[in-house]
Amino acid sequence: MTETSTPTAARRLRVDLAARSYDILIGPNLIDAAGAEIAARRPGARLAIVADETVANLYLARIEAAFAQANLPATAIRVAPGEGSKSFAVFERVVEALIDARIERGDLVVALGGGVIGDLAGFAASVVRRGVDFVQVPTTLLSQVDSSVGGKTGINSAHGKNLVGAFHQPVLVLADTAALDTLPPREFRAGYAEVAKYGLIDDAAFFAELESNWREVFAGGPARLDAIETSCRAKAAIVGRDERESGERALLNLGHTFGHALEKATGFSGRLLHGEAVALGMAQAFRFSARLGLCAPSVAQRVEDHLAEVGLPTRLNQVAGGVGPVDGLMDAIAQDKKVARGALTFILARGVGGAFVARDVAPDAVKAFLEAETLEAEAAPA
Amino acid sequence: MTETSTPTAARRLRVDLAARSYDILIGPNLIDAAGAEIAARRPGARLAIVADETVANLYLARIEAAFAQANLPATAIRVAPGEGSKSFAVFERVVEALIDARIERGDLVVALGGGVIGDLAGFAASVVRRGVDFVQVPTTLLSQVDSSVGGKTGINSAHGKNLVGAFHQPVLVLADTAALDTLPPREFRAGYAEVAKYGLIDDAAFFAELESNWREVFAGGPARLDAIETSCRAKAAIVGRDERESGERALLNLGHTFGHALEKATGFSGRLLHGEAVALGMAQAFRFSARLGLCAPSVAQRVEDHLAEVGLPTRLNQVAGGVGPVDGLMDAIAQDKKVARGALTFILARGVGGAFVARDVAPDAVKAFLEAETLEAEAAPA
Repeated sequence: MTETSTPTAARRLRVDLAARSYDILIGPNLIDAAGAEIAARRPGARLAIVADETVANLYLARIEAAFAQANLPATAIRVAPGEGSKSFAVFERVVEALIDARIERGDLVVALGGGVIGDLAGFAASVVRRGVDFVQVPTTLLSQVDSSVGGKTGINSAHGKNLVGAFHQPVLVLADTAALDTLPPREFRAGYAEVAKYGLIDDAAFFAELESNWREVFAGGPARLDAIETSCRAKAAIVGRDERESGERALLNLGHTFGHALEKATGFSGRLLHGEAVALGMAQAFRFSARLGLCAPSVAQRVEDHLAEVGLPTRLNQVAGGVGPVDGLMDAIAQDKKVARGALTFILARGVGGAFVARDVAPDAVKAFLEAETLEAEAAPA
Repeated sequence: MTETSTPTAARRLRVDLAARSYDILIGPNLIDAAGAEIAARRPGARLAIVADETVANLYLARIEAAFAQANLPATAIRVAPGEGSKSFAVFERVVEALIDARIERGDLVVALGGGVIGDLAGFAASVVRRGVDFVQVPTTLLSQVDSSVGGKTGINSAHGKNLVGAFHQPVLVLADTAALDTLPPREFRAGYAEVAKYGLIDDAAFFAELESNWREVFAGGPARLDAIETSCRAKAAIVGRDERESGERALLNLGHTFGHALEKATGFSGRLLHGEAVALGMAQAFRFSARLGLCAPSVAQRVEDHLAEVGLPTRLNQVAGGVGPVDGLMDAIAQDKKVARGALTFILARGVGGAFVARDVAPDAVKAFLEAETLEAEAAPA
């Protein structure tokens, strides 16, 4: 896909990965411009749209109309909403449907929806005929600021989340910010955890801005667009420097090692959305950093305060139904894909905007921390 | 994996793919040297051996002993023999078993067996934790001269063979030529079709040599080693120039478009082994080329004569149970992954050693050719 000027008045960023570089367009009603944007880049491509039932009911007819207007033939493939669709069974069904739709090299898979759809459809695209291209049309805040950018795709294993997949970069990301207006508030809030993450990793000024202006970000309008653009720019920069996560990219996992363990402990049941697990995981990562003497307790408190203020969970006692025994969490952490040769890798922080990759964290220290957190949760049930 | 001198007295080739370059070692009893070869390249790696029951019974204990001697911990994963294991169900089972065996980045999957195992285990390695490395230990002639080299991995779709997979290069290929001594004669012969293919593609001298010396190649000894080395060298050169099959690599599909359709028509049942289907497909590719006026009928006859002399099928009436109606074959051809945007791509030839990629073959011409071949088969049942 060659670089082209965009027919749409949207904000445009570039993910710089040599032959795999691509544009991210951010703006309202980009779904209606999807036909023109794709036709400008790949005229004559055949398309297969993968969407879950919820998003299909909201946006499928509109994107199909946009494709029809641009003379792009499109097939729709619907899956059930929710994390359960990141399974081998649904993966097989989507892959076979893509082959049945005669998607070949040069054609495009269009992932229309949130992170589950982007991960599932992107992984399916990566294996059909040993790899066809795909376009991300993220419709949730979480997928717009995080999962649609950077090429991580995959499904869940019986052993844990995202343990099966591929690095497969999209050829275009169309983030329709108007789609966020139909997002349930709880999902918007969960996605906001990943926005705050970029401030916590290496941009203290952005985090301070969010502390002041988060209500405007939630309300929509330019503040929201700005926050999404800043987030995408941060992610694009890190991915451009470390596509395969051999180093720096691991910073994006801030809150995710604890978070994945919490999601597994709650059975990917919706008791804890991914973004909520990340929020709680980030609060834990800062408390753990404070416990290790890496940052002041007041820093961990500041992080917790902001996340709590927007309505995100930060303590184990806020997880409905609990997260079970510490041993279960430890097993999940040891099985997490960011483990390297038995040593535990965590993203820890020396301050807001001061995250770093710690590759030699002692399992015992993690266990002691989680035991303290669990005791505290038992002492103060929600 | 850095380049190292090899502890074994074996022939050594190099597949030159920049950061993904790797060695192919060819020689007798390399299975016993597998531990030393891997330990020299990746000390401390954890291994998971994927093998089918047949090969496991012959060689698993020996390779496990080699790994134990080199202090490499290894887990064995067994699957049923045959093309049926290139399914989504077995793929899922192998992937979960690899995760269960805690194979992480830096560890290695070892594919011990023929083409089915290499394709399956390589594809599984490509998706575990978004990609772990793997070693090919091919034990059949077909996998030693073809499928173990070049990084094509995958499973079969309900729509056809190898339609689901990844380009994932091994980090080492150990071709133990002594393993060929236990190979059933029919399987050796089937693999020989891929050896002859390299002569037919672009090496007329090699084909002429095979015409004179094929009995020595079948008998074993230096002639067989030479033929395997020449084949691997030919494949390595093409893969080095065109890893992703954007051009020249398609030449390696000589005989495969017809061949895949024949395999599908016989239900991947063992009525026609892959190499047998390729032999028949190559004979057809040359007859089709002659019919199109690209080469003399005598050239097609010469190809057919040699393949028939070694005992490979070259005519449809030699397929036990038949291959069904032409429409079924045409459907399979249209669904073959080498189709680009509706135009049929075939590897045709202007002579022995004169194969070329034809990207604009008219479906009607293929259909008329297959109808003539079918009529002839009906007129002369085997």
